[in-house]
Amino acid sequence: MADKFMSMKNLNFTLHSRGGKYRSLTPDYLNEHTPKTIDMVFKAAFDLGKKVLHPMFEEMDRNPPQLTDGRVRVHEGVRPMLETLGEDGWIAALFPERWEGESMPSSLLLCINFIFATANYSASVYAGLTMGAAKLILSFGSQRLQNTYLPPMLAGKWQGTMALTEPEAGTSLGDLVTEAIPLEQGKSENRELEAGQYKIIGEKIFISAGDHDGVDNVIHLMLARIKGAPAGVKGISLFVVPKFRPDDKGNLVDNDVIVTQVFHKLGYRGAPIVGLRLGEKENCIGYLVGEEHRGLSYMFQMMNNARLEVGMGATSIATAAYHSALAYCQARCQGRKITAPKASMPIPIIGHADVKRMLLFQRAVAEGALSLILQCGMYEDILAKDPSQKECHLLLELLTPVAKTYPSEMGILATSTAIQCFGGYGYCDDFPVEQHFRDMRIHTIHEGTTGIQGMDLLGRKLTMENGRALGLLKQEMDAAIASAQQHQELNEMALDLSQAMAMLETTTMNLGAVAMEKGPDAYLADASLFLEMFGIMVIGWQWLTMADAAMVALEKQGSKKKDALFYKGKVHVACYFFSYELPKMAGLAKTLENSGQMTLAVPEDCFTD
Amino acid sequence: MADKFMSMKNLNFTLHSRGGKYRSLTPDYLNEHTPKTIDMVFKAAFDLGKKVLHPMFEEMDRNPPQLTDGRVRVHEGVRPMLETLGEDGWIAALFPERWEGESMPSSLLLCINFIFATANYSASVYAGLTMGAAKLILSFGSQRLQNTYLPPMLAGKWQGTMALTEPEAGTSLGDLVTEAIPLEQGKSENRELEAGQYKIIGEKIFISAGDHDGVDNVIHLMLARIKGAPAGVKGISLFVVPKFRPDDKGNLVDNDVIVTQVFHKLGYRGAPIVGLRLGEKENCIGYLVGEEHRGLSYMFQMMNNARLEVGMGATSIATAAYHSALAYCQARCQGRKITAPKASMPIPIIGHADVKRMLLFQRAVAEGALSLILQCGMYEDILAKDPSQKECHLLLELLTPVAKTYPSEMGILATSTAIQCFGGYGYCDDFPVEQHFRDMRIHTIHEGTTGIQGMDLLGRKLTMENGRALGLLKQEMDAAIASAQQHQELNEMALDLSQAMAMLETTTMNLGAVAMEKGPDAYLADASLFLEMFGIMVIGWQWLTMADAAMVALEKQGSKKKDALFYKGKVHVACYFFSYELPKMAGLAKTLENSGQMTLAVPEDCFTD
Repeated sequence: MADKFMSMKNLNFTLHSRGGKYRSLTPDYLNEHTPKTIDMVFKAAFDLGKKVLHPMFEEMDRNPPQLTDGRVRVHEGVRPMLETLGEDGWIAALFPERWEGESMPSSLLLCINFIFATANYSASVYAGLTMGAAKLILSFGSQRLQNTYLPPMLAGKWQGTMALTEPEAGTSLGDLVTEAIPLEQGKSENRELEAGQYKIIGEKIFISAGDHDGVDNVIHLMLARIKGAPAGVKGISLFVVPKFRPDDKGNLVDNDVIVTQVFHKLGYRGAPIVGLRLGEKENCIGYLVGEEHRGLSYMFQMMNNARLEVGMGATSIATAAYHSALAYCQARCQGRKITAPKASMPIPIIGHADVKRMLLFQRAVAEGALSLILQCGMYEDILAKDPSQKECHLLLELLTPVAKTYPSEMGILATSTAIQCFGGYGYCDDFPVEQHFRDMRIHTIHEGTTGIQGMDLLGRKLTMENGRALGLLKQEMDAAIASAQQHQELNEMALDLSQAMAMLETTTMNLGAVAMEKGPDAYLADASLFLEMFGIMVIGWQWLTMADAAMVALEKQGSKKKDALFYKGKVHVACYFFSYELPKMAGLAKTLENSGQMTLAVPEDCFTD
Repeated sequence: MADKFMSMKNLNFTLHSRGGKYRSLTPDYLNEHTPKTIDMVFKAAFDLGKKVLHPMFEEMDRNPPQLTDGRVRVHEGVRPMLETLGEDGWIAALFPERWEGESMPSSLLLCINFIFATANYSASVYAGLTMGAAKLILSFGSQRLQNTYLPPMLAGKWQGTMALTEPEAGTSLGDLVTEAIPLEQGKSENRELEAGQYKIIGEKIFISAGDHDGVDNVIHLMLARIKGAPAGVKGISLFVVPKFRPDDKGNLVDNDVIVTQVFHKLGYRGAPIVGLRLGEKENCIGYLVGEEHRGLSYMFQMMNNARLEVGMGATSIATAAYHSALAYCQARCQGRKITAPKASMPIPIIGHADVKRMLLFQRAVAEGALSLILQCGMYEDILAKDPSQKECHLLLELLTPVAKTYPSEMGILATSTAIQCFGGYGYCDDFPVEQHFRDMRIHTIHEGTTGIQGMDLLGRKLTMENGRALGLLKQEMDAAIASAQQHQELNEMALDLSQAMAMLETTTMNLGAVAMEKGPDAYLADASLFLEMFGIMVIGWQWLTMADAAMVALEKQGSKKKDALFYKGKVHVACYFFSYELPKMAGLAKTLENSGQMTLAVPEDCFTD
């Protein structure tokens, strides 16, 4: 197992190198947190990651969850980990003081999750899921639901989940059929205090951490359709459905939630993904969260954050894989430079240009993605501090599909490249990269597939408020370009980014014409490719921003030699990105312009022989 | 498990749609084989694949080889499979009549291996390795070695291996240290009949099928250095090193070959990859094959074929994954077209443009790769029939790095896309695609990594005989373009391919200038990218050739409706390739032109923080 799974120096650098107009308008977006206090928090998280999560990275994979006697058995380290995360306040961190939290800014929470996920991705998701579920209860649940569920959840004693998917309703949530039948309410009915109670009948699949013996209870934030509700997405409501429900006396009683299966997965094996059957004995009660029929809109208010977290998960895995590969390439001797004498000693393989290229690629992906997600975190935090800055909301909406997809799609290639650095050893489980490669593969699928993200970007985000978001992004990018141009070394990259932006604008306009002429099916036919092209540009912007920050740091007098190497390295990776990754936009632009949406026209029966 | 793992119609179509000058010069390159007899052979192979190999596809993966009491235990189906493959003559097929073979053309053998590998890749490699080892003995071994080893190997009773890699010598074979010390020879020494005997001492790793209980003996074709031999690649000799050696009386005695480990692999788990220690008790005897110090050159005479086989393995896996994905996309209903009424029924997901794009991509890769490998097989067969056609040898040399790498690299993306078609189910082992994705990942590594293939293409193949091979390829491509231009529907693709060829020539010339100005390290710094660019062009050529053949078939009167759909489908996939894949060359060309070989200049210590 690799000793090093992340770079604290890089994390701090990335967090503090944010740029753009909104950063300058709200420089204190991290509230009272200073670089020093942030460093302390990060170090505490790292300590936990290293001592608690990382040591079970392989074990959790090799001993995946098992369904035994109706209960899901997970690694014995999960319970003490969740207790520690609860006791030390990590799960409650983003919550207000009332819940013993500290209203931690999103940016910092994302960094903390990054640290945990680089240490052990599977282990990190348990608490993350509980946080997300608890946040839904806090935002939309009744006082009573909050009082009942938040304390044990934030203490790490109860697990939270998001229970959306059904066998016939994955991507198409509007088709879900789990039913909620109103129960007669108790006498003390008070909408403010008490949630409506419903009998739940249905089936859910692919529920992450949907059951396990590392906690005393599992609380599902579940979508279901109230009997008689309208069809489609507008008839979906949100419920709290616990595994054990508190009865009148406060005792926990069985709530008729049965685990039907544990899915056997390619990776991400340390966390159970389960199927559930609800109300088999007609004794499953769900508690309505917020108002009827508004369930999906509640879920979607959490969706941006959930998607950033997926992007961060992918980024974390790519980061850990890169550090393994780097350590190997520095230590492993094999071959010589082409021009070296044949009798010379083999050199560490990092000395070979192609190996260096593979390392630069992994950094370009992992560090570029980290930067983008923290940019999104910044927009979230500025908005939380000053809700009048609605433009940050638009930027966040626009960038979220990229922040989810770029790390997930490119992370597959980055972890694959990590394997390649190891040669045959990379294909074996002596080293962690094959596990990273397997763990990575989920991220283009959950929380909305890449295809869905493409349609979200092109169909919804680009068209919001008459396309205003893209204009705002252009402003942010122009600011980055202007700032970078102050360093001669970055002039060429700045120019490349301007041209990339112009290219994207042309493509966008052409697609607009397609929409007018041929309608939405044609407009969205190649949405995945547009997302890919857009993503490369956006990550280019992030690399220019980081190169700029690195140049500023380099130009400061008196930086240590080791720091100078780090900053120079940053500029080299930026240069790699602009030389090797940004040019890929041209091919995508050409396809988007010339494909004629041929995929629409190919008849389905042409695939059969 | 998917029922369908390949299309016989597509295999036959691809085999028979070869084009170009050399095909027209030697139309009977498949010897006496007619489409009808070929079909019979393929059907027999398919029958075996379906009945014997495919049923154990999952089981072999779930129960990987175990090292117990010094012996590697494999799936109980391996022994009867090898016996059947031996008895029915499949292992001996390519050998001359003297060895009960039928001198089968390479093209057909490649097709048969394709059929077996689509059924079960891991299962297919056992016999393939034995064939390769046996071919080495036949080509370079003494009469006595042939008489001793070929009959049980070709009968499937003894396993053959290629034993090259050592812990400190993988990519860099010249550094291998396994030692061969000459033994005093017996009295009847006769170089023609008898091989020199050597005491072997050393260690080998990553030996495929290096030991297992599905056979009675394992015969390693092993590289070692005779004591006192020159350093580097010119001091390497080839030996037969059996697990059990025949003593004077013909009894098999232990030959001191110890299995040190079975590697636990990401995929390809049905076949054991082992580590070996040789001569621990100083009782391991190796028999020299051919002359001293010529071992690596013997191996390399087999290398083209071994690399084609790796490409074919990758192609096969991508093919099987595609057929699974297609069946799922045709059956799974989810979502509606964007313009459909909300209340309409969900449609099979193949109806969504993005899903169709993913299926087209998989076909573009798998069928394009198959076509290229059969093109290479054709050049081999023409050369075997008429050794004066040396140009076919140059073409084969030039195309082999692509035929190995394109399927291997793109196959990772193709199987990943197959997973994506399944959504969450693709990540679970209920369906075979996650296994295909794992099985695939080895191919960019073994038989020369992608980095090595890139340097081989740019450094050796492009410069052979003053760059003559590229000129020959251009002729073949020009012939394909001229033929395709007879169909108006293909005019645009033909033009695109001309332009792609011109672009590649420009890139090649620019790189030539780099070589002159900056030397070989700079010339080869981006060799992997050049290989990628070259590969896209070459596969474009193959798709134009196939589209041409499909148009010819369509224009023939009286083709059945189902056949017409198949041919139209072919043209659609070609169109997909030219719209979505070929444009990627532009970005690669730009990088190759502008990178300034920056990876050479990035200091190694910039990676540390």
